Amino acid sequence: MRIKIINPNRTAVFTERCLNAGRAVAAPGSEILATNPAAGPASVECHLDEVLATLGVVEEVAAGEAAGVDAHVIACFGDTGLHAAREVANGPVVGMSEAAVYAAALIAYRFSIITLPSRTRIFSDRVLQHAGLEHRCAVRCIDVAVSDCSDESMELYEALLVEGRRALAEDHADAIVLGCAGLEMLSEPLRQALGVPVVEGVAAGVKMAEGLVSMGLATGRTGAWARPSAESLRDAGVRTKSKEQAV
Amino acid sequence: MRIKIINPNRTAVFTERCLNAGRAVAAPGSEILATNPAAGPASVECHLDEVLATLGVVEEVAAGEAAGVDAHVIACFGDTGLHAAREVANGPVVGMSEAAVYAAALIAYRFSIITLPSRTRIFSDRVLQHAGLEHRCAVRCIDVAVSDCSDESMELYEALLVEGRRALAEDHADAIVLGCAGLEMLSEPLRQALGVPVVEGVAAGVKMAEGLVSMGLATGRTGAWARPSAESLRDAGVRTKSKEQAV
Amino acid sequence: MRIKIINPNRTAVFTERCLNAGRAVAAPGSEILATNPAAGPASVECHLDEVLATLGVVEEVAAGEAAGVDAHVIACFGDTGLHAAREVANGPVVGMSEAAVYAAALIAYRFSIITLPSRTRIFSDRVLQHAGLEHRCAVRCIDVAVSDCSDESMELYEALLVEGRRALAEDHADAIVLGCAGLEMLSEPLRQALGVPVVEGVAAGVKMAEGLVSMGLATGRTGAWARPSAESLRDAGVRTKSKEQAV
Amino acid sequence: MRIKIINPNRTAVFTERCLNAGRAVAAPGSEILATNPAAGPASVECHLDEVLATLGVVEEVAAGEAAGVDAHVIACFGDTGLHAAREVANGPVVGMSEAAVYAAALIAYRFSIITLPSRTRIFSDRVLQHAGLEHRCAVRCIDVAVSDCSDESMELYEALLVEGRRALAEDHADAIVLGCAGLEMLSEPLRQALGVPVVEGVAAGVKMAEGLVSMGLATGRTGAWARPSAESLRDAGVRTKSKEQAV
Amino acid sequence: MRIKIINPNRTAVFTERCLNAGRAVAAPGSEILATNPAAGPASVECHLDEVLATLGVVEEVAAGEAAGVDAHVIACFGDTGLHAAREVANGPVVGMSEAAVYAAALIAYRFSIITLPSRTRIFSDRVLQHAGLEHRCAVRCIDVAVSDCSDESMELYEALLVEGRRALAEDHADAIVLGCAGLEMLSEPLRQALGVPVVEGVAAGVKMAEGLVSMGLATGRTGAWARPSAESLRDAGVRTKSKEQAV
Amino acid sequence: MRIKIINPNRTAVFTERCLNAGRAVAAPGSEILATNPAAGPASVECHLDEVLATLGVVEEVAAGEAAGVDAHVIACFGDTGLHAAREVANGPVVGMSEAAVYAAALIAYRFSIITLPSRTRIFSDRVLQHAGLEHRCAVRCIDVAVSDCSDESMELYEALLVEGRRALAEDHADAIVLGCAGLEMLSEPLRQALGVPVVEGVAAGVKMAEGLVSMGLATGRTGAWARPSAESLRDAGVRTKSKEQAV
Repeated sequence: MRIKIINPNRTAVFTERCLNAGRAVAAPGSEILATNPAAGPASVECHLDEVLATLGVVEEVAAGEAAGVDAHVIACFGDTGLHAAREVANGPVVGMSEAAVYAAALIAYRFSIITLPSRTRIFSDRVLQHAGLEHRCAVRCIDVAVSDCSDESMELYEALLVEGRRALAEDHADAIVLGCAGLEMLSEPLRQALGVPVVEGVAAGVKMAEGLVSMGLATGRTGAWARPSAESLRDAGVRTKSKEQAV
Repeated sequence: MRIKIINPNRTAVFTERCLNAGRAVAAPGSEILATNPAAGPASVECHLDEVLATLGVVEEVAAGEAAGVDAHVIACFGDTGLHAAREVANGPVVGMSEAAVYAAALIAYRFSIITLPSRTRIFSDRVLQHAGLEHRCAVRCIDVAVSDCSDESMELYEALLVEGRRALAEDHADAIVLGCAGLEMLSEPLRQALGVPVVEGVAAGVKMAEGLVSMGLATGRTGAWARPSAESLRDAGVRTKSKEQAV
Repeated sequence: MRIKIINPNRTAVFTERCLNAGRAVAAPGSEILATNPAAGPASVECHLDEVLATLGVVEEVAAGEAAGVDAHVIACFGDTGLHAAREVANGPVVGMSEAAVYAAALIAYRFSIITLPSRTRIFSDRVLQHAGLEHRCAVRCIDVAVSDCSDESMELYEALLVEGRRALAEDHADAIVLGCAGLEMLSEPLRQALGVPVVEGVAAGVKMAEGLVSMGLATGRTGAWARPSAESLRDAGVRTKSKEQAV
Repeated sequence: MRIKIINPNRTAVFTERCLNAGRAVAAPGSEILATNPAAGPASVECHLDEVLATLGVVEEVAAGEAAGVDAHVIACFGDTGLHAAREVANGPVVGMSEAAVYAAALIAYRFSIITLPSRTRIFSDRVLQHAGLEHRCAVRCIDVAVSDCSDESMELYEALLVEGRRALAEDHADAIVLGCAGLEMLSEPLRQALGVPVVEGVAAGVKMAEGLVSMGLATGRTGAWARPSAESLRDAGVRTKSKEQAV
Repeated sequence: MRIKIINPNRTAVFTERCLNAGRAVAAPGSEILATNPAAGPASVECHLDEVLATLGVVEEVAAGEAAGVDAHVIACFGDTGLHAAREVANGPVVGMSEAAVYAAALIAYRFSIITLPSRTRIFSDRVLQHAGLEHRCAVRCIDVAVSDCSDESMELYEALLVEGRRALAEDHADAIVLGCAGLEMLSEPLRQALGVPVVEGVAAGVKMAEGLVSMGLATGRTGAWARPSAESLRDAGVRTKSKEQAV
Repeated sequence: MRIKIINPNRTAVFTERCLNAGRAVAAPGSEILATNPAAGPASVECHLDEVLATLGVVEEVAAGEAAGVDAHVIACFGDTGLHAAREVANGPVVGMSEAAVYAAALIAYRFSIITLPSRTRIFSDRVLQHAGLEHRCAVRCIDVAVSDCSDESMELYEALLVEGRRALAEDHADAIVLGCAGLEMLSEPLRQALGVPVVEGVAAGVKMAEGLVSMGLATGRTGAWARPSAESLRDAGVRTKSKEQAV
């Protein structure tokens, strides 16, 4: 099967990291692709960024569908454009954040998201409300801009470590969820330093997407994520031919 | 003061109705404007529509800010683009849906939203979760497309009436919230037929916006709705000059 | 229109401040009145006080109705006697606390109430449970008696400032709600010192009441806030003539 | 020990029934008293009634305290005046509604309250929110006035039976809570007809009050139910001498 | 009536303390028994312990039923095996934890459980979720093993005192619930040191069980706690004769 | 990798079906095993059954660990013994029910569990409360005993179909979760008849377990699911040698 990871921002170094994260866990026979829109925000740090990034996500989903991809993974904490992507895609679409918290819930009674920057706390809240794990997951923020994560400075690692220790002591966390894409290289050092599992969401998203494809499950079409009308798809510039062929 | 109503879809007849709804309740001295984006969806009936419509909302907010408007009201059930609009505007931005449920909560212990079409139930759920009134408000859907509301057929009225009667009997509703913009002409007939208050959200939004302006209250800037970075604003094509002058 | 603010305690200096707060924000053409019961507690700091104060609120509502007032605002944090007042009044009745948290929710994702004294935390909890904003609002208490707020000492201001800073740092608050009537003179100094919007509830209540009257909305009569029986009204000493004329 | 049941309304036939209900379950050595205020509403069917009835409850609690009663039970669904009574009493005060739902929760996973009249649904909601059993208890209403329960007509029994059957089928109830004081004579017939336990709250309140007294537990005084100030007690006409001796 | 306390672990000193706690509060005429399984864990500190202990609880309930006991109390925080015990018993079964939080809720608006060791926090969460009091009760843990509570060292008392003080200051607790059986001798010293009521669950369980028996209430049999099939009882080694005679 | 499915009941035909369900979706290179305890209940239909079945689950987990299995899946709706199994295993343990609802949440906004028999509704409630999806998932019961599912009668299919149609109409479900192990052969017929995705939990559990192993994630050991003490493991008859070697 083929699974396409979509990094909603235009920063290619993140895309490459997400590809690495996905390939590292893919099952034999799964081909993992990764891409990012040519335009759009450098990082997704506010709602305005999300709107622009969602346009790119929808385009990339439509392109993936046209290319016969089996499933998509959205590689941005907050699951940018998840609902619209589900409407447009034939196959399943998995957000890295929801995948991360579901994976965490299978190995830890309580856990904490550490995300950045602080103003994006509302994105994590939204993910937890949708996924339903508010009662088992705390949200902690560090004030580093997402765009600063592209260099591999120790500053980010130190900030995650400090907040991770607080999560263990104050939130009674048994696991940590990395609240940003492209941090897979920090996962193992943090696990060793903190002594608890550390969940990286792009990897989790790839495995959940693989699972859905293996089970033959795709988005239900009777309600909230039904396919848009032909007019809506046209307005959005989505090539509808592939849609009409499908299902 | 000047308050600008933004109809996020491109259907002018809705815009005109929203303007009427707003003017009918405006305080002496409040100037009410209404507009809709030139492009964008004909109606907002799915998440894909919301993405496109949000681009228009953001543009209209930026234009309103440049023109010195004091506050904006988003006139679409679901409050399309509310978060992004709040980030971009200097003045307050009020969604018609949140305004409607807050107004309803001041006059009814329990109430019901009647919205359309069924697939948009998720929008009402989102509004109630954000506004916090899930414990007092039920959601009912009728399967009429929003675009069909532009003619003044009796069909829509009959469907609302049937569902309204069910709301009284089954939800123990003491008031009804009209779950769509542009239906203000059905408000009084429904009130008379059902014997309970009927809340129209655009009017509610205008009054809440007036209230915030009178109190000198604008969006807090320290967290979820802080102003986007200059780069994000530029990416979104928002003219940033007026922003930089402000605050 | 005419809106009557009811201060449920007998302390006239609070009533005057509430009147000032209301008049400062009233729309052109709105006449704002304010009163307090002759008897009743000096301040409302426990449930026993609430019972006595509610009797006064009901009397004042009945008097207001007889005098043709369009709406009432209850000017005490906790919204003393709100349910009974809604049953007795023909027009809408708005509590300052619910109005304050709804106004805050329109400009801040998260916010904090700072109220006093500590034992009244249960009142704020009740307001938030009813209004539905527990997920976005924290409650903080300072141990100053309400009655001590009647002099304009700096002590109260300092206590609010200290707790406000904690709210920003620990609750991630983007706005502050003043959890007591009669503090409107502290609103602007706190806003400047804290750098976030500060919501004063009496003003908010007046604007919400104006809004409801403008929209022609009054309390729904089919359920929880239906009019009391003639016997109940007589028992409560409410002059029922005006009631029977109405509706 | 001596336990005093307070029927908050002035209808003596209910008081007598409550006394019977309490005595039928009292432990050896427990003396059960019952009383009702001379003034106040004939029944408690709205919030206005609750205000007046609470005055009587507070007076009766103060009288009970002066007479050395060990605990009080409030015998009205909705637990009229519970918070104020707890502030005034030295000993524990138990509401019949909270006692009933706690007893029901010990013998049934899910259960339903059947209360009357419909407009008092808000009282049951309040009880369940406070007691915390909303997730296990449904509320059903029948449209009989409380005052009509004073004759022993079959009409009330039939209405309870019809709604009880619906509770079993639709709410998956394993027990029924009688949502009104003075119905203990219907408890056994309903149990036999429905085949599930039926909980009568006055009896439950007496047993919970006995339990608290036996354990030496009385209301905590550090927060929400701390004793009112001397001034508040004086304003309420509560004889404070007994209070000042106590503690 | 006869009430049997079941200590689910095999540590006899706890059983004796539970018996003392129960007898100290029993009504005249109530005979209190206490027992523990011969096998099973020394203390219940993890889910694996719970499984083994539940087998003992079920056996003891079956033995109690055969001996004509009227009700059972499970004397372990977390209410080990409560659901299975309810299925097997004819009479009511009360868990010490649910009884403790219900008793606490009748005398304190907010309260805190102090339990041990830390890993059992999930047990208290489960109790609060089932009982429904998460909104009024905080959980605090101390890192003493349950098995270390069997000597009467001051270490445990000191740890409870420290955490109790934090509960008052940080949780706004008006009462403390002892989160372990067999600590009744610490109840009074803690009450005096902290100045708030301290609830001991075994005593509470005995009083709630007495109450249910007095009211003639036993577990509802239509749903979650219906009697197991004969085959299930046989598989569990429960002597079914007494069952078949009953009900 | 090797994944072992544990059917907690002793009915071999279910075990075989679970093996088929798991193998049908396994990734290349994943070896799927399935087993059931020799003793234990024929099916798990009450809490008493759960206790006995959990003993078998724990034994099978210990045996799987000794044999070097990488992860375990519990194949019974309700996730029998999940917490204890997590404590005992070194590798991850996934319940079929939590896996099913997480898979459903990735493809459907709202969905419904159809489980059996009715008395096990409490198991589904427990799963949803733990997994956190109560706000998006309804529970429906059919009154067929689990043991009757072992023959492939049409009766069960018809009952599922009837309830599935109700789920679409009344719960607004966009997907169905089969609330029992061993029904994978009904999955495709139901999907075709209902027109929505149907999620089979054993398959979902296998894919989630695969995912966790691929990501190198195992149960966090700092809190609720920490390893039991050596004494607890010995009491439970778990061979501890393999444990001590691990970690």
